[in-house]
Amino acid sequence: VADHNRLSLDMLSVDRASDEPMHRQIYNALRRLILDGRIPAQSLLPSTRSLAEDLSVGRNTVIAAYDQLFAEGFIEAHAGSGTWVAPIQQGRPAAPKHRKHGRCPPLSRRGRIIVDGPQPPRNAGVINFHPGVPETESFPFSVWSSLLARNARSRDDSLLGYLSFSGHPGLRRTIAENISLSRGISCTARQVVVVTGAQAALDLVARVLMDENDNVWMEEPGYRGARSAFLAAGARLAPLRVSRHGWNLSDRSLPPPRLIYVTPSCQWPFGTIMRIEERLQLLDIAERHGAWIIEDDYDGEYRFRGRPVPALRGLDNADRVVYIGSFGKTLIPALRIGYLIVPEELAGSFDKAISITGQFAPLILQATVNDFIKQGYFATHLKRMRRLYARRQAHFVDLCEKHLKEWITVAENDSGMQLLASFTKPMKDRDVVAAAVKEGLDVQAISINYHSAEPENGLLLGYAAMDERQILRAVLALRAAFIGLDRKQPSAPG
Amino acid sequence: VADHNRLSLDMLSVDRASDEPMHRQIYNALRRLILDGRIPAQSLLPSTRSLAEDLSVGRNTVIAAYDQLFAEGFIEAHAGSGTWVAPIQQGRPAAPKHRKHGRCPPLSRRGRIIVDGPQPPRNAGVINFHPGVPETESFPFSVWSSLLARNARSRDDSLLGYLSFSGHPGLRRTIAENISLSRGISCTARQVVVVTGAQAALDLVARVLMDENDNVWMEEPGYRGARSAFLAAGARLAPLRVSRHGWNLSDRSLPPPRLIYVTPSCQWPFGTIMRIEERLQLLDIAERHGAWIIEDDYDGEYRFRGRPVPALRGLDNADRVVYIGSFGKTLIPALRIGYLIVPEELAGSFDKAISITGQFAPLILQATVNDFIKQGYFATHLKRMRRLYARRQAHFVDLCEKHLKEWITVAENDSGMQLLASFTKPMKDRDVVAAAVKEGLDVQAISINYHSAEPENGLLLGYAAMDERQILRAVLALRAAFIGLDRKQPSAPG
Repeated sequence: VADHNRLSLDMLSVDRASDEPMHRQIYNALRRLILDGRIPAQSLLPSTRSLAEDLSVGRNTVIAAYDQLFAEGFIEAHAGSGTWVAPIQQGRPAAPKHRKHGRCPPLSRRGRIIVDGPQPPRNAGVINFHPGVPETESFPFSVWSSLLARNARSRDDSLLGYLSFSGHPGLRRTIAENISLSRGISCTARQVVVVTGAQAALDLVARVLMDENDNVWMEEPGYRGARSAFLAAGARLAPLRVSRHGWNLSDRSLPPPRLIYVTPSCQWPFGTIMRIEERLQLLDIAERHGAWIIEDDYDGEYRFRGRPVPALRGLDNADRVVYIGSFGKTLIPALRIGYLIVPEELAGSFDKAISITGQFAPLILQATVNDFIKQGYFATHLKRMRRLYARRQAHFVDLCEKHLKEWITVAENDSGMQLLASFTKPMKDRDVVAAAVKEGLDVQAISINYHSAEPENGLLLGYAAMDERQILRAVLALRAAFIGLDRKQPSAPG
Repeated sequence: VADHNRLSLDMLSVDRASDEPMHRQIYNALRRLILDGRIPAQSLLPSTRSLAEDLSVGRNTVIAAYDQLFAEGFIEAHAGSGTWVAPIQQGRPAAPKHRKHGRCPPLSRRGRIIVDGPQPPRNAGVINFHPGVPETESFPFSVWSSLLARNARSRDDSLLGYLSFSGHPGLRRTIAENISLSRGISCTARQVVVVTGAQAALDLVARVLMDENDNVWMEEPGYRGARSAFLAAGARLAPLRVSRHGWNLSDRSLPPPRLIYVTPSCQWPFGTIMRIEERLQLLDIAERHGAWIIEDDYDGEYRFRGRPVPALRGLDNADRVVYIGSFGKTLIPALRIGYLIVPEELAGSFDKAISITGQFAPLILQATVNDFIKQGYFATHLKRMRRLYARRQAHFVDLCEKHLKEWITVAENDSGMQLLASFTKPMKDRDVVAAAVKEGLDVQAISINYHSAEPENGLLLGYAAMDERQILRAVLALRAAFIGLDRKQPSAPG
């Protein structure tokens, strides 16, 4: 025993110049020596008095170190017989520093499906032609900042606690009041469920409303984020074909759905508006199959000429429609606040579900969005953005006509923040995207939105975030990409 | 045809005093008339010129209304033959206004499991004795507010976009740097995944690391939020028995686990610290079964005497431990920022997974927490809270000794924000909670943390959020509850 004591003491020292308190140094050193087996289990440790003397430290310093070791079970005190190293398994090998493949278990099958789900690729381009990106320059940051600061100073319990899973009561009320006017939906505040953005809404809805192996009708082509959420929830996806002219709701090959995903206000990626007869037919189909309709209104606020098209959820007897909206595109994406409108009788269930999935948006941000809306800033900003985007679209269409008509046709669209460009001659859109990336452009190929059908090729060009000068630069860069492609693969004559 | 026209015209009128633009009024009226079937499908509508005359409005007003109806598919234009109501299905019954049971489909089986999961009941008490609630009075709101305001004004792309799914790069770096010192974990910024709180972290981990019907060892008694997350992911829960003395890791009746959930720094609800030999044994068990360990460090920062106990994740070869931390208890709960430390090789998978589940915390809040830490406010606040909670605990224990020792024994604890109270005589904790609610108290029964074993009865008393006066008031209210109970059910002598 005496040998052990001497052994352990020799290895111990304290560094008086270190920032680390001495008791912590002693604790760390003993812990390491015990874990490595250099002080064997069952060894008798020196008394605190004798160790303190050997190290020339105060006795309380050693006591603090021993207390910590004792609390963590490294050492044991036996009445009258001193302090012993606990009988622990020692000598665990340290982890190799630079191993390539760790020894941690793999993801689960479900984890693999979630991780392998499709995601819009972000290209490394400097010029952001990416669809769905709003202008942020014009956002009234200083108003926003002071409203936020006021809420951040508030000691109001309603902003500090754990409660209000479904959202800030004021914001839920405001959304319910406003959505009647803006989207033709009549609902109560209880039906509004605020979450961390539209993606969280899709994920939550898929988990709560469908089971593994349920059939989900997914727009084809359609939004990849939704597709991923349904796959993550174990859905069997059935392609609901969409063209520029509408939804193929009469497709007899589709299995009975549990859930139907649509973007009726502005179809992604085509921008088509769902006609009233299709809406009524869709509601009938859902009714017949006892299915849910998920209405993703990702772009519904942006219509330039007429008014926004009323939401599908706003039609009579549309209680089986769950509506998803977001402030990401009307304010700033990083806010990450989206919301669901759910049937009254499911409001309690969603509140419970969100308390478990944790997809809740922070209350001070919600309260601030509420202030922003109530004080009129939101309406002003939206109106301004609508005018701005309409102007930018017109400018963009003109420039495409002028510089790009040899390769693409861009049809004006009455809504949205991006336009669909069709090729004037057979081209693979992935080739075009690759060439565009070389010119510093981040553009999206239409074909990535297809999953089972033969894809239509084309580009989805987001013009909303660029000013006129940037649009020109982007158009010219795209032109350069096309010219480069032509040189590589001269198109067949005629 | 002429009759139809007259019919529709008679029903149409505009209200010049209304806030609603006239084209919108005409659009709404025609839309409603068509949907209800009062203007039958295939009717010929009056020309815009003639309707404008009849209504005494400008022709452009009618054109705007017709354009909107046309865009939504209510009407069709046939070249040379005017404007016709589209062949849509009409006369859908309006939804009954006050039906009790709607016609929407039920939740899915999974949705039912999620919604039926256990959740800590919140009692209606005014005096918040609820465990896990931090003091917010002392939080430096004005510093926090100005840091947040600065970030909210920033047009920095890194705060505005959709990217950085796994978190703000600065905050991830800061957490990685600090967690080495505070919790003995060495990791890179890539391994840090920021989410909307610990509950979201539990949910995410359960979905990505386990499959439906996998065995999960769950502490018994244990934290209900974790239990709910695992159930929501389809787990089969196996009870890992815990007592005040430790974890029963040698229980042969436990099935091979895929995932093991533990709170080693401060067991919920007992407050026990997991001894080093148990830690090593646990790592071995996980290794042997190829299982994951989920370390929920919900309270690890609060240890009053010694230093915080190092995390299990900090031991050598603990790559199969996924660590969950949160700022909810060290800052303010409503922040809803938590984080995971995942193995290096899974960092990419988690980034992908979170982009689909949408459990991301807003970037400006993350950036602000980062500033708060980097500028030293976090350390100061934590130190202050540690001292404050230690003082409050001592005060609380004294008052319990003075006023409550007839009914409960409260053992001082070296960590946490709540204390376990044992009954001195047989009582049902649910009865005590019910009596306490009547006295305006929100307290938690220990038994709710049990799910399969015969529960121990007692109370979990959160004292952290109360000042000394409030603690006294709470203790006296609890005393009143006990006295009331004694009167109702005089305890058996002896």
